[in-house]
Order: sequence, then structure tokens, then C-alpha cells
Amino acid sequence: MDNLEKEKIKQIIENRNKSHSYFSKKSKVYRSFVEMEKNTYSDGKLSKKQKELIAIGISIVINCESCMEWHIKQAINDGAKEDEILEAIEVGIEMTGGPGTASARFAMNVLDYYLNDK
Amino acid sequence: MDNLEKEKIKQIIENRNKSHSYFSKKSKVYRSFVEMEKNTYSDGKLSKKQKELIAIGISIVINCESCMEWHIKQAINDGAKEDEILEAIEVGIEMTGGPGTASARFAMNVLDYYLNDK
Amino acid sequence: MDNLEKEKIKQIIENRNKSHSYFSKKSKVYRSFVEMEKNTYSDGKLSKKQKELIAIGISIVINCESCMEWHIKQAINDGAKEDEILEAIEVGIEMTGGPGTASARFAMNVLDYYLNDK
Amino acid sequence: MDNLEKEKIKQIIENRNKSHSYFSKKSKVYRSFVEMEKNTYSDGKLSKKQKELIAIGISIVINCESCMEWHIKQAINDGAKEDEILEAIEVGIEMTGGPGTASARFAMNVLDYYLNDK
Amino acid sequence: MDNLEKEKIKQIIENRNKSHSYFSKKSKVYRSFVEMEKNTYSDGKLSKKQKELIAIGISIVINCESCMEWHIKQAINDGAKEDEILEAIEVGIEMTGGPGTASARFAMNVLDYYLNDK
Amino acid sequence: MDNLEKEKIKQIIENRNKSHSYFSKKSKVYRSFVEMEKNTYSDGKLSKKQKELIAIGISIVINCESCMEWHIKQAINDGAKEDEILEAIEVGIEMTGGPGTASARFAMNVLDYYLNDK
Repeated sequence: MDNLEKEKIKQIIENRNKSHSYFSKKSKVYRSFVEMEKNTYSDGKLSKKQKELIAIGISIVINCESCMEWHIKQAINDGAKEDEILEAIEVGIEMTGGPGTASARFAMNVLDYYLNDK
Repeated sequence: MDNLEKEKIKQIIENRNKSHSYFSKKSKVYRSFVEMEKNTYSDGKLSKKQKELIAIGISIVINCESCMEWHIKQAINDGAKEDEILEAIEVGIEMTGGPGTASARFAMNVLDYYLNDK
Repeated sequence: MDNLEKEKIKQIIENRNKSHSYFSKKSKVYRSFVEMEKNTYSDGKLSKKQKELIAIGISIVINCESCMEWHIKQAINDGAKEDEILEAIEVGIEMTGGPGTASARFAMNVLDYYLNDK
Repeated sequence: MDNLEKEKIKQIIENRNKSHSYFSKKSKVYRSFVEMEKNTYSDGKLSKKQKELIAIGISIVINCESCMEWHIKQAINDGAKEDEILEAIEVGIEMTGGPGTASARFAMNVLDYYLNDK
Repeated sequence: MDNLEKEKIKQIIENRNKSHSYFSKKSKVYRSFVEMEKNTYSDGKLSKKQKELIAIGISIVINCESCMEWHIKQAINDGAKEDEILEAIEVGIEMTGGPGTASARFAMNVLDYYLNDK
Repeated sequence: MDNLEKEKIKQIIENRNKSHSYFSKKSKVYRSFVEMEKNTYSDGKLSKKQKELIAIGISIVINCESCMEWHIKQAINDGAKEDEILEAIEVGIEMTGGPGTASARFAMNVLDYYLNDK
């Protein structure tokens, strides 16, 4: 895959790690967000994998690249196949039209990164 | 359930029906949107029900009441239980914080409408 | 047209009038916004009508009902025909997918109100 | 103030109460959101009042009517005067232009409700 | 123009080409989106150029850089002059305030790229 | 701090300067926006510093990186301490959940840039 895109994904990961330390130490609000996050992405009536796929669709619609990187990685770890993730992206495209196809490009690069080219 | 909320849901349904006729007749763009919609919400690697749950999460985040009404109704028709829909709403809340809890109120009323009080 | 929808449009108009008085008196920021608005919607290289059609497309995408009411009324006053407004709405639908078709319903009601049923 | 607007505000309050009971009972994610909310709106380096004014500016930009109702009520309870709340609304208008002036109308009605006409 | 900005524009173009191939092959939803796109941007009661100007205004408001690159290029191909595109950008600024002026910076770079410095 | 992140912040500043010249010369709408901006961020019932903190919270929610860079710099110039800015960011996180924590990473880098590493 393209080196600039790969660099961008690595930068997102590094930035998340750095800021996770900073906000975990500094912010009680952030720590309670992390608690809410844990409560959200755990197996319930829906599997964790299904919830990650919902979060992928949302990430496409709001064009949150860092969210795409995170939830696609999680979904793959939870056993989601490329075609399943693609269908979650498709729901995002239906729910946001042209700008969704722009978001989907970054999602495609993230898929490529984790499946073929880390 | 509250009469004003029930009226609002009925108004959404009536408006969708009326506008579906208008735009289907008048707009080629709308007709190709309907085609895209059909291609999206059909069984694939993910079931139609799973895709409706993704659309519910998205609807919470963008606070689209008409989308909530439609996709919650579809999910119920596809066999989704209240607790499964609730967990899709929870992903929406995690992905939008306080404003998501405001969106979730309308979703709760739609659930009430279709499950208990149509 | 439906009485509840008609009521909603009238409510938007009344609310705008009331708040325009309030903020014009109270807020220097609002007064400079009104100045910016005047500079925007005037004939230039693009006609005022063309600019109102751009604003209609934007209003669909952000689902701002009050903006739809205002800019559709302005476009009609500037000589725009139903089919021209419809095509601006179509660009909005292409740029936001399913939720855009929900916004478009209100735009349809506003068109109906000003063209047939005020 | 206008009866329809007053009704709308009362409906928002009633709906919040009802859904707070529902989600508090049903959803662990919601309960952790409430925890995060408490951690956010408490006196720190900024006073709770200052934080409510920030939330008012945000509510204008995202046009969350329920958020406006809640945070304006809180700000008033924390001692904010009409002119301070107005200036928070002004920041919201600067950060979203025309659509912000539409949001600001509802904020004006909420101010009217709590200051003059509950 | 600045080399980093030029690189960013080229990256957007390359990414669109790559993802267009991927999604065209893999996704029926994407293919029906492309059909909807074609139906939208064709001469009708409004010219294709006028529709591209509407899309530029929308792209400013939602800060979609890839959309700006695409629709500005299309508008130029359809005969739009710099000053016409600038006025579409101005409608976007009126409809989103300060953040719109931030989006407008990228639009300015895209204009520079296609008009002076490809 | 990380070189790529530092480069990004410098690029935002340079781009703003360049586009400020371009739009100031070319656009009457932009010039009236600048007037509105001045009217907004001046001492009133709220201090300029308090208004900048409101703008920071908004910037987190809409993920406007250029807005974060600008308003954090302004807040620091107006005497805001790191912990005060952090609490404005926290309101933004409460008002947008997970995606807000992604925005907050860039805000953290901007804080680092202006406080430790310009």
C-alpha cells in the first residue's frame, strides 16, 4: 500500500497511545469515558463483533478516521471477515451518500493495512 | 405512551409515504437512491437484521428521527428483540455522548410504539 | 396539505420574526451576521437565485428545517421554478444519502406551502 | 410566550424524565454515561457555571434542542444571567453561521421559559 | 503553491482512483451510488455546472476535502470561473461561520492547483 | 513532540495566513465574517478568555483542527492555564463521546506545541 497512507495510519495509532496516557492521568472525565467504552463493546445480546460493525458504520458517516482505524482493527480481532466489514461500510455509504464514499477510502486503506500489509 | 409522541411518529410515517410518491414520480436521483437502498438492506455476509442494527446506531449519532422510526421498524420485522435494538442504541450513545442520550429518547418512543402501543 | 405540517411551517416563520427582533436588539454578533448574510445573498457573478439554490442544497444536507423554509421561499421569490428547486434538493440527496431523503420531505412540504397552499 | 413552543419545552422535559428511568434501569452504558456527565459538570479549575456555558455553545452548533433546554436551565441554576447566556449563544452563532441563528431561536424560547414564563 | 498542500491534493486523487476500482468490483451498493451520482450531475433544469456549484457549497459546510477537490475540478471543467466558485464558497461560509472559513482554505488550494499549478 | 504533528500545526498556521490574505482581498462575505468574529471574541459579560474556552469545546465536537489550533492559542494568550483548557476539552468529550476523544488528541498536541515546544 501507499507509504503516505501507511504513515497516516501509524501516526493515528501512535497519537492514540500518547493521548491515552495523557488523558488517563489528567482527566477524570476521560477515565469515565473509558469505563463507558468498556461497557459498550462487550458481548451481550449482540456480540462484541456485531457492535464493532455498528461502530464502523457510524465512523464512515461521521468521517472519523481514528474511529475507523480502531473499530476495523477490533472487528478483525473479533473474527470479522473483509466482506463483513465491507457490508458495514456499505450501510455507512447508504446513510451518507457521496461523502461516505470519500470516508470509505480511508476504511479501505485500514483494511489493507491490517489484512495485507502491517 | 404519550399522545404527542405517538402523533409525531404517525406524522413521520404519513410524510414518508407522501414524499415517496412525490419523489418517485418526479426524481430520477431519488429512484436511483431507492435502488441503492435495496442493494444495501438485503441479506449478504451480514443479515438484513444486522444491517438494520448498524443503521439504528448511525441514526442515533446523526439524530435522524425519521431514520430511527424506519430502521427500528425494519429491525423488529427482521426479528430483532428489544434488547438487541437497545445495544445498537448503546453503541450510538458511546459514539456521540450526551446528544446521543437525547436521540435515544425518540428511539425509546419508537420501540414503545411498535412493541406495545401501535 | 396536512394541517400539522402547515402549522409547523407557520411556527418557523413566527419564531424567526420574534427572534430576529430579540437578537437584533440584544446582539452585536447577530447584527454583524445579518450584514454577512446580506453580502452573501446578492447578485454577483452568480445570481441571487443561484446562491439560494446552493443554500437549499446545504440545508438538505444539514437538515435545517428553518433554513429550508427560508431559502426555498427566497428562491421562489427570485423566480426559481419547482423543478429547479427539486434539482437542488437532488444534489443534497446525493451528498447525504438516506437521511437526505428524510430532509427532502420537509422541503417538499415547504414547496407545497408556497406554491399551492399558503 | 407562544403556547406551541411552551408545549415543546414541556414535552422535552417529560421525555427526558421518562427515558432517564428507562435507560437507567436497562442500560449499563447509559449508567456509565451518567457517571461521566457528573464528572464533567462539577466545579474544577472552571466553575460548573462556566462549563454549562460551554455546553450551551456546543448545543447551538449541533442544534440539540434537548441539550439547550438542559444546559440553559443548569446555567441559570448556577447563577448565569441572561446576558451571559446570550454571549455563549453568540459564540455558537459565530461557529456555525446561518443555521446557528436558527438554533438560537429555540435557545431564546428556553430563556424566556425559565426567566419569565414557566 | 506549497508542496505539502500539493502532495495532499495528489494523494486524494490517487486514493479516489484506487478505491473506485476496489469498490466498483466489490460492492453493488457502491455501483448503485455511482448510478445515482450520474443521474445527479447531468444537465437538467439546472446545468451540470450549477449543480457542481451547489455541491461545492455543501462540501465547504461538511468540510469534505475530497468532495471539494472533485466538485471544484468538475466545475472548472464545466466552465466555471474562479469568481463563480468563490461565490459558491461564500454561501458555504455564510452557512457554517468560522469552521467554514477553515474549509475554505483547502478549497482555495484546490483552486490554485487547477488554475495555476497542476 | 512528534515532528509530523508539529509540521501539521505549522501547516495550519501558514495556510490560515495565506488564505486570510486571499479572502480578505477577494470576498466581501469573508470581510463581514471577520467583523462578526471580532464582535464575538471581545470582553463583554463573559471575558474573551471564557469565550475562547467555549469555542474550544465546540471545536472538539465538530473536530475542526484549525479551530482548535486558533482558539487554544487565543485562550493561552488570554491567560488560560492548561488545566482550564483541559476542562473545556472535557465538556467537548462529554458532548460527543468516542469521536471527541479522537479530536482531543489533536488538542493535546496543540497544547504541547504552545506550552512546551513551539
